[in-house]
Amino acid sequence: MTLFDTIKKPTLLLNADQTRKNIQWMVQKANAEGIHLRPHFKTHQSAAIGEWFRDEGVTAITVSSVDMAAYFARHGWRDITIAFPVNWREIDEINDLAQQIKLNLLVESLETAQFLEEHLAKPVNVWIKIDVGNQRTGLSKTDPKTIAQVASAIEHSPMLNLKGLLTHAGQSYHAESVEAVQQIHTESLTQLKYIKNYLAVLGVARLEMSIGDTPTARLAPEFGSLVSEIRPGNFVFFDAQQLKIGSCCSDEISVALACPVVARHPARSEVVIYGGAIHLSKDSFRHDGKTAYGLVALPEGKGWGTPLDGAYVRAVSQEHGVVHLSPQDFERLQIGDLVCILPAHSCLTLQCMGEMLSLEGERFTTMNSQ
Amino acid sequence: MTLFDTIKKPTLLLNADQTRKNIQWMVQKANAEGIHLRPHFKTHQSAAIGEWFRDEGVTAITVSSVDMAAYFARHGWRDITIAFPVNWREIDEINDLAQQIKLNLLVESLETAQFLEEHLAKPVNVWIKIDVGNQRTGLSKTDPKTIAQVASAIEHSPMLNLKGLLTHAGQSYHAESVEAVQQIHTESLTQLKYIKNYLAVLGVARLEMSIGDTPTARLAPEFGSLVSEIRPGNFVFFDAQQLKIGSCCSDEISVALACPVVARHPARSEVVIYGGAIHLSKDSFRHDGKTAYGLVALPEGKGWGTPLDGAYVRAVSQEHGVVHLSPQDFERLQIGDLVCILPAHSCLTLQCMGEMLSLEGERFTTMNSQ
Repeated sequence: MTLFDTIKKPTLLLNADQTRKNIQWMVQKANAEGIHLRPHFKTHQSAAIGEWFRDEGVTAITVSSVDMAAYFARHGWRDITIAFPVNWREIDEINDLAQQIKLNLLVESLETAQFLEEHLAKPVNVWIKIDVGNQRTGLSKTDPKTIAQVASAIEHSPMLNLKGLLTHAGQSYHAESVEAVQQIHTESLTQLKYIKNYLAVLGVARLEMSIGDTPTARLAPEFGSLVSEIRPGNFVFFDAQQLKIGSCCSDEISVALACPVVARHPARSEVVIYGGAIHLSKDSFRHDGKTAYGLVALPEGKGWGTPLDGAYVRAVSQEHGVVHLSPQDFERLQIGDLVCILPAHSCLTLQCMGEMLSLEGERFTTMNSQ
Repeated sequence: MTLFDTIKKPTLLLNADQTRKNIQWMVQKANAEGIHLRPHFKTHQSAAIGEWFRDEGVTAITVSSVDMAAYFARHGWRDITIAFPVNWREIDEINDLAQQIKLNLLVESLETAQFLEEHLAKPVNVWIKIDVGNQRTGLSKTDPKTIAQVASAIEHSPMLNLKGLLTHAGQSYHAESVEAVQQIHTESLTQLKYIKNYLAVLGVARLEMSIGDTPTARLAPEFGSLVSEIRPGNFVFFDAQQLKIGSCCSDEISVALACPVVARHPARSEVVIYGGAIHLSKDSFRHDGKTAYGLVALPEGKGWGTPLDGAYVRAVSQEHGVVHLSPQDFERLQIGDLVCILPAHSCLTLQCMGEMLSLEGERFTTMNSQ
C-alpha cells in the first residue's frame, strides 16, 4: 500500500528532502554574502521544521505574532523578532517573553515608543519599520523627519535599544518578472541608504538594515554592504505565486495538497476535487490572464510530478475546488483519483490545514495543529 | 471591566440574540410557505448553535463533508444531507454514518451511482445534483438525457432511494441586486420544472425539489408549489457580501471580528489592525468599485454599531489588515482601540477562527475548535 492509497481527504504533503534543500540554499547564499539570515517562521509554524534550520546553524528567527514567538520560545529559540507592529493589548505577554529570550520589536510611531517606555518591565531591542512602497505599515520613506523623531525617542529611552531600520518590500509578491523584483530591491536599498545618511547627520549612527521577502532574497544578485540581515520565509516551501514571479522552479515547491477527484465534467474539461477555500485558502495568482488558486500535478512515484500544462484551479468554494485541465489530462483522471495541488500561497494553505504529512508518512504538526 | 477590555487578540464576536432572530425568521418563512427547511450547518459548524435550530423545530440538516455529518450525528442529528459529491475514498465512513442516521447523498454521475450500488452496506436516500448555472458541479440542466440515465440507474438500484432533484444557485452570491437574485431564482425554477416534466414522461415521477442558497431563500417572494425543500446556511449570521446583495440589513449581521488597532497612517487615513487573512479569510466583495475584505464598525454598548460610512478593509496579509476610514472616523481611533470587522464571508471567517465569543462572554466552540 502506498502513501496515496491511505489518503481519504485533502492532505498537505511535505517533501522533506526538498524542504531541507531550500533551507540549505538560503543559508549558503547568506553565508556567501556574509549576511545574517533571520528566517521568517510564519510560513511553516512548525517546531520540527525549525530544527532543520538549527541543523544549518540558524539561531535567530522572525515571527508574525506574540503567540508564534511564545510557541518557538517554548521550543528553544532564544532570539526572536516579532515582525508586526506592537499590539499594546498583549503587553503582559510581551513582558513575559522579554524575561525569557532576546526579544526584538518593531516600532513605527512615537505613541508606541512611548507606550513601550512606560510599560516594558525589561529593555528590548527595537527596529524602526520603514514602508518602502508596500503601503501596509511602517513610517513612510518620504517622511525622514518623523523617522528621525521616532529614532530620537527610542535612543533616549533606557528601555529601548535601537538596532536599526527594517523593511518588507511586500510589493515584490505582485511583481511579474525577475527584473521587476530586482528593480524593487534596488529602489528599496536607495531609500534605506538615504534615510540612514539622513539619520547619521543627526547623530543616529551605527544602524543595521534588515530586509525581508522571498523574491528579493532569492533574486537579488547581491545585497551590498548596506544590508546586514535578511528575513525571507516563504522559500522554505515556495508555491505557485513564487513560481510565477520566477523566485523558484517547480521542482523546488515542496508542499502540495493531495485532493480526491469527486466529479468529472467532460463538456468543460474540468474535474471537481474535495479541496476548497478551507484547505487552500482563497489566495490566488494571475495565470495566463486568469485568476488561479493553484497549479495541478499528479502523483508520481513517492511524490508528485511537474505541473500539468494548461491546468489550474479555476474556482474554490468552501469545500469544492474546480480544476481546469487539457482534454488529454482530463481523460487520464477518474473519480476517486488523487490530484496534487501546488497552492497559490503555501503560508496560508498550511495555516488552513494545520499539519502536514511527509512523503515518508510522518505527521508534521504546527502551532495550529489540533 | 467590559467584554471589550478583556480582548487582546482577534476575536470573533457572536450576537446570540440576533442569531436566534435570524433562525426564527427563516423558520417562519418556511412554515408560512409550507416548505421543508433543511438548513446548511457549514456556516456555524457548532453543536450549540444547532440546538437553537432544534428549539425552533428543525430536525433535518445539510452539511458539506462526511466529517461534518459525523460531528452533527454525534450531537444527536438523525437526518443529514451531505451536499457534496460522494467522495469514494470515504466510503467506510459513509457506511458507518448510514448505520446511525438517515443519510442523504448527492449523485451526479453514472459512475458514482454504480460505485454506491457496489459499496454501500445499507440503502441510502439519493438526490440528483443539477447545475442550474453555477458551473461548479452537478449534471447540466441542458443535458436532460444524461439526467434521465442517472435517474434510471438510481431507480433500478436496491441500495439507492431516489428522493429528487437538488440545486445550489451559487451564482446568486455574485448578484448585485435583489432583482438579479429573483431572476436567478425564476430561471432555476423554470429549468427544474422542465427537467421534472422530462423525467415524468419517462416514468420517473414523484420527485421532490430541493434548492439552497441564502439570497434566494431570503429574497424569493415565494417558492411556488414546485419546491419542497430549502437549504440556506449563511442567513444564520449573514455578512458583508449578503448586505451588498441586499439579502439582509446591517443589524442582522450577527458576527464581527474584534481587532486591535496597532498602527495609524494619517496620510492615507488608514489604520492597521491585528486581523488578517488567517482570521478573516481572503474572501472579498466589491465595495464602491473596490475589492473589500470587510466592513468596519466600532464597539458600542454591549455590541457594535452600524458600519462606518466609507470605511472598509482594503487589504489583508497573513496577520495584518489595512482599514480605510473617513478622516473624521480616522481621528476617533487610537492605537490600542478595537474595531469590529463585519466579514466579507462569515462561513470562512468562522472556519479560520474555529470559535466565537458571545457578547455575554460565553465561548462557542465548533467542530474545528482546538
